[in-house]
Amino acid sequence: MAVNLIVPDISDLHPVAGVRLGFAKAHIRKPDRKDVLVVAIDEGASVSGVFTQNRFCAAPVQVCREHLQAGKGIRALVINTGCANAGTGQPGLADARATCAHLASAIGVSPQQTLVFSTGVILERLPMERLLKGVEAAVAAVGQAHWLDAAQAIMTTDTLPKVCSRQIAVGGRTITVTGVSKGAGMIRPNMATMLGFVATDAAVSQALLDNWMQRITDASFNRVTVDGDTSTNDSFVAIATGKAGGALIDSDSHPDAAAVFNLMRDVSVHLAQAIVRDGEGATKFISVRVEQAGNEAEALKVAYAVAHSPLVKTAFFASDPNLGRILAAIGYAGIDDLDVSRVQLYLDDVWVAKNGGRHPDYREEDGQRVMKQQDITVRVQLARGDVATTVWTCDFSHEYVSINADYRS
Amino acid sequence: MAVNLIVPDISDLHPVAGVRLGFAKAHIRKPDRKDVLVVAIDEGASVSGVFTQNRFCAAPVQVCREHLQAGKGIRALVINTGCANAGTGQPGLADARATCAHLASAIGVSPQQTLVFSTGVILERLPMERLLKGVEAAVAAVGQAHWLDAAQAIMTTDTLPKVCSRQIAVGGRTITVTGVSKGAGMIRPNMATMLGFVATDAAVSQALLDNWMQRITDASFNRVTVDGDTSTNDSFVAIATGKAGGALIDSDSHPDAAAVFNLMRDVSVHLAQAIVRDGEGATKFISVRVEQAGNEAEALKVAYAVAHSPLVKTAFFASDPNLGRILAAIGYAGIDDLDVSRVQLYLDDVWVAKNGGRHPDYREEDGQRVMKQQDITVRVQLARGDVATTVWTCDFSHEYVSINADYRS
Repeated sequence: MAVNLIVPDISDLHPVAGVRLGFAKAHIRKPDRKDVLVVAIDEGASVSGVFTQNRFCAAPVQVCREHLQAGKGIRALVINTGCANAGTGQPGLADARATCAHLASAIGVSPQQTLVFSTGVILERLPMERLLKGVEAAVAAVGQAHWLDAAQAIMTTDTLPKVCSRQIAVGGRTITVTGVSKGAGMIRPNMATMLGFVATDAAVSQALLDNWMQRITDASFNRVTVDGDTSTNDSFVAIATGKAGGALIDSDSHPDAAAVFNLMRDVSVHLAQAIVRDGEGATKFISVRVEQAGNEAEALKVAYAVAHSPLVKTAFFASDPNLGRILAAIGYAGIDDLDVSRVQLYLDDVWVAKNGGRHPDYREEDGQRVMKQQDITVRVQLARGDVATTVWTCDFSHEYVSINADYRS
Repeated sequence: MAVNLIVPDISDLHPVAGVRLGFAKAHIRKPDRKDVLVVAIDEGASVSGVFTQNRFCAAPVQVCREHLQAGKGIRALVINTGCANAGTGQPGLADARATCAHLASAIGVSPQQTLVFSTGVILERLPMERLLKGVEAAVAAVGQAHWLDAAQAIMTTDTLPKVCSRQIAVGGRTITVTGVSKGAGMIRPNMATMLGFVATDAAVSQALLDNWMQRITDASFNRVTVDGDTSTNDSFVAIATGKAGGALIDSDSHPDAAAVFNLMRDVSVHLAQAIVRDGEGATKFISVRVEQAGNEAEALKVAYAVAHSPLVKTAFFASDPNLGRILAAIGYAGIDDLDVSRVQLYLDDVWVAKNGGRHPDYREEDGQRVMKQQDITVRVQLARGDVATTVWTCDFSHEYVSINADYRS
């Protein structure tokens, strides 16, 4: 069902110097599938993370925050699929700590130098015996796995692995950024989680990477929505190993900063969009672009009002250019002094609403033509300023209801 | 498909002295159906209205606001179904004014003493010739229609008419409150509108009725949601004719004030809930009650987060006691300092989550038993204060997607 989501050839997935991967089949939930991934990181890397804002955050998220806070240098990550270790209280927290301790011991670092991520069913305890054996096996196999294995090992009900790799030449060196993600976070708090991991061999200081991560997240994983539900385990981590050499990038004024930042952002945007393209029951990939907003906050209000409206999303499913539903969503987005008589609405290149009403030259068949596409851009102009933003979403189909109504059965 | 929605016998629908009804079949959109309703109001009544917050509000809403503002005493309402006169710009505004002028002329009052309401398809002009003939016919028939006719005349895709009538004895007099509503507003901005009209023969001052209307709306029509979409035409009007006699109720300290207020509120709650019970594709009626909140705003945030979550709503459709989805929705509702370890969750009488985690004694079959009911109460306790509120919603079914995907075809 995924919408225009292409899985790259392994030959196009560039390893990142300083990062080695290993997986195991630990039978966390299902037999004979990759379900434990270990990411080993050479000493000296910067590692930064952004986590769910959900107050019911899962045990591994709490442990990650503590370990990053400790600032001892992260040397390894472990990710399991099949069980999210969420809603498990103090015993779940102990399980997450035990997993870190086991990983740390296996590779000879302190537990605070490790991070742990879990995804899968919630309200169930991890099968710790099988998981810890899996961690050992994955550590023993470190260096043997490639990034496609990594993408597969973190899948839950994703229909396709999500992986992206790009290179650029900067200052005479080749810089690589490679990453993986899994869905579908906001659409499956039960299969709990959006996860994203991006690694580069560029040398980026810890402070700058922390700063970049918030900006990159806001441009990527914070701009995708399937149904507005934020999960308990959402996590996004970036690793900069510095193995490509070159002077440390420690501020945005460094000559290589912009190029590396843009590359990391682009890979992250691709990975975030991949989650929407593989959204539950998705048949359309929709970019909602709001232009001429007075500020970012109101741009986002309008974009999310359109992107979350079940009426708009079912109209996309039906390929119905039902512009009244889009205008109504703009109208209730919460901008109290919006002058609707200055609002323009486009579907791709088709100008459908002019100054708040149907464009006199708009023909239904032109709207219909755009709505039948798999990739569609809704563009709204508010005439209030010069701020623009885009969020990405998918349509709402029968399949979505089926998947979520039948999920646990 | 309506969930436990009962249409009363005509004999249980009490006329309201000082209010007379007339309808016509004007062929606004479909032949041979009641589609124009006129409500004639005797001189001296108080009339108050609350309207959509949507910035794209329809022409009739703008005219109603102006005419109520003028304060000349409202003497008649006209409501048409079949066409919402929304997204029609200046010509639509002229149509709404012309409708008022025609009504005013037919009954011998000024246009500012009339209100106009339209519901139906948007972005299309009203068939003015047929509408004005219909207005004349409805005025000629005033006094011949009963409240069930009124409920039927304002239906769009509602499957059942929505009408409620109650009486109480106050100070030796019988006070009547009778009203009608139609859906499904938030769920059909295209068939544009939630409408509610409630009339009483009690004597209530204009100022007090205006005050009550906000409180009644907050307890009724502002507490129902099907999919979170607010329409362009939502309107709720109350009429107090004073024909029952007795001293004018002009403050909450009047001895009859509480009884009359409560009766008007109860009828309005019934009419609001009827919209949810007849929500598109609804198979369950769900009350989301939030208790122990620190204030009303945070209680509503949590209640609406649960009521709007597509994951929660599909779980209700599936009769799946998927408490993780409810907890996740509470967690992302936007209370930054929520201590989840103090949150309790109940499904009717079943305590499912204790102190933020699964209750040790909770058995899936108990949750399942409640979820299979048609009427379900989700009760959340936040341990932050003593404020409680309830919102009402329905589940999310295949039928919802079908109705909204196929709506215009």
